[in-house]
Amino acid sequence: MPAWKRTPCPIATTLDYLGDKWTLLVLRDLFRGKEKFCEFLESPEGIPTNILTERLKRLAEAEFITRVPYQDHPVRYAYRLTGRGRNFLPVLQEICRWANREFPETVAPPADLMVREV
Amino acid sequence: MPAWKRTPCPIATTLDYLGDKWTLLVLRDLFRGKEKFCEFLESPEGIPTNILTERLKRLAEAEFITRVPYQDHPVRYAYRLTGRGRNFLPVLQEICRWANREFPETVAPPADLMVREV
Repeated sequence: MPAWKRTPCPIATTLDYLGDKWTLLVLRDLFRGKEKFCEFLESPEGIPTNILTERLKRLAEAEFITRVPYQDHPVRYAYRLTGRGRNFLPVLQEICRWANREFPETVAPPADLMVREV
Repeated sequence: MPAWKRTPCPIATTLDYLGDKWTLLVLRDLFRGKEKFCEFLESPEGIPTNILTERLKRLAEAEFITRVPYQDHPVRYAYRLTGRGRNFLPVLQEICRWANREFPETVAPPADLMVREV
């Protein structure tokens, strides 16, 4: 089965996985060290729980993240970036550079995130 | 009025404008030299006309593109990237590098697009 759903264009393929208003915010939070469902919910954009559940499932299926149980009763999972997910960092860095330049009202991202290499 | 709608996070702000399955494909086509409504419709992903109309309107309002009439009866417009739109190229380049690496079934983008500087 091919990775792509619409066409083999790398941009279309990326959008098949990540093209919405929320998924990159979950990746952003993972790069900032968040791991738990409740931690993603705390982000100020206010991602709805049903969307967060669906996005984490989709990211895990596409092998951007893995989930590891950290508690048994009830079972709770910690979510972590895979290599594929971590390799996406340069895209987020370029987005931040562009947005900070074009929209001066936006805030600078954490400095360590902008110099981190994959 | 601030540029951002949800939070001043540069990633959230970018997604406010570009976070969907289609808009980056329109930008891709503009970087490849497409200008006319019918040219965007010809791309193999098959963008629906109503979505294309809405996205071109939104991109123009956010000053990513301008529209210039190229025909009078009936009036027809050519769409072109502004500086803000052209400055987005490094993001598309990083997306292509990432997708080509993670999904080997994706095709390489036109070489000139990958070395072009903004």
